[in-house]
Amino acid sequence: MTSLLKRVRISLLGALIVFPAFSAEKPQNIIMVVADGMGPNYVAAYRYYMDNPNTPMVETTVFDKYLVGSNSTYPHKVSGYVTDSAASATALATGVKTYNGAIGVDINKKPLESVLVAAKKQGKKTGIVVTSQINHATPASYMAHNEHRRNYNAIADQYIDNGINADVMLGGGWAYFIRDDRNLVAEFKAKGFQYIDAYEQLDSTNKTKPLLGLFADKGLPFAIDDNNPTRLAKLTGTALKHLKNDKGYFLLVEASQVDWAGHGNDIAAAMAEMHDLAKTIELLEGYVKQHPNTLVVLTADHETGGMSLARDGDYAWNPDQVKQVTASADKIADAFLSQRLSTDDITALFGSELTRDEIKLINRAQTMLSPTLKGQKRTRELSKTIKSIIDLRSNTGWTSSGHTAADVPVYAFGHSATQFAGAKDNTDMAKILFQLIRE
Amino acid sequence: MTSLLKRVRISLLGALIVFPAFSAEKPQNIIMVVADGMGPNYVAAYRYYMDNPNTPMVETTVFDKYLVGSNSTYPHKVSGYVTDSAASATALATGVKTYNGAIGVDINKKPLESVLVAAKKQGKKTGIVVTSQINHATPASYMAHNEHRRNYNAIADQYIDNGINADVMLGGGWAYFIRDDRNLVAEFKAKGFQYIDAYEQLDSTNKTKPLLGLFADKGLPFAIDDNNPTRLAKLTGTALKHLKNDKGYFLLVEASQVDWAGHGNDIAAAMAEMHDLAKTIELLEGYVKQHPNTLVVLTADHETGGMSLARDGDYAWNPDQVKQVTASADKIADAFLSQRLSTDDITALFGSELTRDEIKLINRAQTMLSPTLKGQKRTRELSKTIKSIIDLRSNTGWTSSGHTAADVPVYAFGHSATQFAGAKDNTDMAKILFQLIRE
Ligand SMILES: [Zn+2]
Ligand SMILES: [Zn+2]
Repeated sequence: MTSLLKRVRISLLGALIVFPAFSAEKPQNIIMVVADGMGPNYVAAYRYYMDNPNTPMVETTVFDKYLVGSNSTYPHKVSGYVTDSAASATALATGVKTYNGAIGVDINKKPLESVLVAAKKQGKKTGIVVTSQINHATPASYMAHNEHRRNYNAIADQYIDNGINADVMLGGGWAYFIRDDRNLVAEFKAKGFQYIDAYEQLDSTNKTKPLLGLFADKGLPFAIDDNNPTRLAKLTGTALKHLKNDKGYFLLVEASQVDWAGHGNDIAAAMAEMHDLAKTIELLEGYVKQHPNTLVVLTADHETGGMSLARDGDYAWNPDQVKQVTASADKIADAFLSQRLSTDDITALFGSELTRDEIKLINRAQTMLSPTLKGQKRTRELSKTIKSIIDLRSNTGWTSSGHTAADVPVYAFGHSATQFAGAKDNTDMAKILFQLIRE
Repeated sequence: MTSLLKRVRISLLGALIVFPAFSAEKPQNIIMVVADGMGPNYVAAYRYYMDNPNTPMVETTVFDKYLVGSNSTYPHKVSGYVTDSAASATALATGVKTYNGAIGVDINKKPLESVLVAAKKQGKKTGIVVTSQINHATPASYMAHNEHRRNYNAIADQYIDNGINADVMLGGGWAYFIRDDRNLVAEFKAKGFQYIDAYEQLDSTNKTKPLLGLFADKGLPFAIDDNNPTRLAKLTGTALKHLKNDKGYFLLVEASQVDWAGHGNDIAAAMAEMHDLAKTIELLEGYVKQHPNTLVVLTADHETGGMSLARDGDYAWNPDQVKQVTASADKIADAFLSQRLSTDDITALFGSELTRDEIKLINRAQTMLSPTLKGQKRTRELSKTIKSIIDLRSNTGWTSSGHTAADVPVYAFGHSATQFAGAKDNTDMAKILFQLIRE
């Protein structure tokens, strides 16, 4: 108690704190939300994207209610100053800096214990809810140990072989969990898991049994393209029901595809992912009101894309030009490549009529596509032109198809939330959580 | 007291606070520091720029100690979502959103009272310390009212005509304060001000007299080019001595040229400005330890340049390539244009030898300069090539020569610092300060 008091006193610059007698020292439930790639500009962008243009002020978002600080994201020095998702997820999960690519291991490839595993050891239930495949870098760093994130099959195998067996696992991943050489879904079923593979089944699961839900071959569709554009919120709601437990639980929620939209420099896709995340946080906000012994922490592992709200010396950002778009740039490109689109079709995809110059740009890009370019690569090439049109309309800037070393925001609410206040490092997230989890 | 208690309780999520009996409700002294253009990436960049590569961890900076939240920066809706320095300075100074270009007036051009003027009315001393001309947008919004920031002479006139007469004014501005049509310096002297115009005089001023110090025609030289690279810290130290007062004081400090380096996309110049700012904050940190009844708040008015730490898909940012540069890109360009530079001269400017390709780039840019381009425009054109070399070496990205709509960080320490915690709006800065200033 003394050290807790000391910590809080410092943050209050001398004010004296007395905790009410009914307050337990540690939260029963911990929900760690990672928004992969969500640099600070994604959150500001989402605020303006959601702004009601008919009111004088800009409305604040659910994120704005809970900002407490920031995280630095740099990896171990062997990898310089710009992290990948594996090194930063390992830092968030285990409190240790490592090399880019590492999954739950240090620079000597020694396995590191994650906060999820520590919670399991304390008798808590555990869960992972993601929109990527469930064995992607971020969830993998909480569940497995591997020298490289690309070893997807080996990582999937560990989900059952390591004996962690999180009580709830929801996301994508048929390609890795139902393989010719090994059917992990069947193995989980044999261990007593119920298995579902369609969103429609989420409402009728048996809440007393552990749950494995895989809804796509690899990642789920982009929120903007998905038949349920708030699928992360939906999955999270189901997970909460399964995790109910006297000793509490640890749940990792990842908005995995903020990062994927960022890598693609697709602002409309990115904002739809942010919207799904916002709905998830709103759900958790309501949950914490009912269950005040729950801690919710939201942060990112790094920024993706070097996104900026304005570019080229022009003092404008036009979110209306983003909000009206109804599909990811890849899906729009696919539509152009697979059929003859009417003007109405095109208007429906972009949300407003294209100018003659914009149509010309797309036509020229199509005729310039190399005939040797096939499938996804062909889509991606045309997709660049689609995105350049949306970026010009909205005046959105990007500097990279990769990550940057921006500090990322930290949001926290519920039990012990104030412990996350101030400028921190990604390793601090795990260090604080270990203190809140371990005896 | 009830409302104060309530405010703090909310921020502590239910913990009960008791203030020690000796604590006064309001700070005696308020120091508002505005780092013009300092988006969050400038602060992260400075951390890595200052990192000692020989230690395993990255050292934290003085900024990291005091992060409490962020500000949204958007102007009044008539100007969209991306602010200029005038609208955001007016928001920070008066708590009111206005149009881009406005100096201390609302969208109907009605004058607004600033926190500096409110402090003066309470019997506090007041001061402004900046590295721009002292009648530039940010200080002007605290001291004057004008429909447009570009009316520099009219704004300078108001510094004496409005009867505000801040007790300390330090920065640049001969061009506006010693004019053919009016000599404001002489007028200030006639009002009892002492006037200085060289840094060397800063240590020998009469601390009982009001002080006007102008050290350049317009802005001071860039920190990286100045004979005193920490001139903001030096000016601030002098101001503090002049402001000592039973009823306290309000001091505006502006690191004006973070923004100018950002507009130029000059990363080395930007980091030198950040270093001067860091030294200023360290000075204030020491001051607050001696004078705990002082509040220090640091924020930015907006982000400039869309700066990112990494670009082009490359997971790297190389601050060593920035730190070794010894002059602004404009000064390096001037050197190339005004004399024949030896290899040693060039190496000294860039901090390391240029490659043959880099030399070729500069030579080609020089030969391609239009002969009609003269003076500063000629320098600026060649300067672009200099910066592109440093950006490529350091892997620094930029999306704009203007501002972006990024949220900016807020740092606070000393008396009442916790009131600035969380995600706020630039208008909140003034609203909180008014409460702390007014009876
Ligand atoms: Zn990524
Ligand atoms: Zn500016």
